[in-house]
Amino acid sequence: MSTAIDFYFDFSSPYGYFGAVEIDKLAARYGRAVSWHPILLGPIFKTLGTNSLVNIPVKGEYSRHDMERTARFHNIFYKAPSNFPIGSQVAARATLWVQQTQPAKAVELIKTLYSAYFTEDIDISVTDNVLRIAADLGLDRAALEAALGSPELKDQLRQATEAAGKAGVFGSPFVIADGEQFWGFDRFAQLEALLKNGKI
Amino acid sequence: MSTAIDFYFDFSSPYGYFGAVEIDKLAARYGRAVSWHPILLGPIFKTLGTNSLVNIPVKGEYSRHDMERTARFHNIFYKAPSNFPIGSQVAARATLWVQQTQPAKAVELIKTLYSAYFTEDIDISVTDNVLRIAADLGLDRAALEAALGSPELKDQLRQATEAAGKAGVFGSPFVIADGEQFWGFDRFAQLEALLKNGKI
Repeated sequence: MSTAIDFYFDFSSPYGYFGAVEIDKLAARYGRAVSWHPILLGPIFKTLGTNSLVNIPVKGEYSRHDMERTARFHNIFYKAPSNFPIGSQVAARATLWVQQTQPAKAVELIKTLYSAYFTEDIDISVTDNVLRIAADLGLDRAALEAALGSPELKDQLRQATEAAGKAGVFGSPFVIADGEQFWGFDRFAQLEALLKNGKI
Repeated sequence: MSTAIDFYFDFSSPYGYFGAVEIDKLAARYGRAVSWHPILLGPIFKTLGTNSLVNIPVKGEYSRHDMERTARFHNIFYKAPSNFPIGSQVAARATLWVQQTQPAKAVELIKTLYSAYFTEDIDISVTDNVLRIAADLGLDRAALEAALGSPELKDQLRQATEAAGKAGVFGSPFVIADGEQFWGFDRFAQLEALLKNGKI
């Protein structure tokens, strides 16, 4: 198997969710693994002086409509959450912790958190909801709760976000494969062309 | 033939150019005409407090690479212009004038201006270049030159841009078809689904 594909995502990003639904199927078609990187777009937007699409007048309303339409177009189940956007620190920190302590469960946790938020309207900015979802997957709720309160885990997410920013990441989803950067779920066709042909 | 598709574009926008190359072939496949709307993104961005992609740090460099890659991916001939972005008032005003005085030549003028800028590195912010291109198409150079200096034509472009902003346009290309808005060349597949199926 060749080098893994780096997949960066923010748990508050609908397009990140669409990407998370598709990325491992896409990678697997070309014998590639996926390296999942939860990040926080907030600090990256702050550094670049940009803003979340949904907070910009006119563009915001358009993008909410586009999210629903894009989900339908790609046959992805999607229900706009009532509380949106959210702070995604807790979900991202929980993911980092599971990646370190029980890596085999990490992708399942990511997908379950994402689908809880974007298909069941479960607010994953709420710690209790994240803990319950983790516990349902057989993870140690008490150990995760303790970890979520630790400065070490907060620092790890800060560092992961900084490293992503240094790698050029400025949106979600953001894929880096063989040195090529792809911003957005709508660049997956170009990503696939790279994986298929070895160039783009 | 059903209602025309409204295609909004800024002559300084590479994705607008890609859209201009493809939109009439796409529309024709479903028996639809295209209504071409040259606009200026500058005043729209100012109203919304947004900025051109290429002026944002990191995103700017990414987008320049993405433009080249997207052109290759869609087999569209593209050469990044040395002077970019440019003020596109002259090209847009020339288009409005031709749409009014010799509508049968308007689409040819649009495509020739776009390809001059994005494949031959001819700076279409320069009035002389626009006049020469128009003359090469058999248009009346002296009449166009006189019109370009008139306050009426400037006002028409201002009004066209305002009307586009009121219709919800905030980028280039921007398509409105059967009440559905599509921002970006990367939504043409969804636009096609609408034209094909009557819904999206």
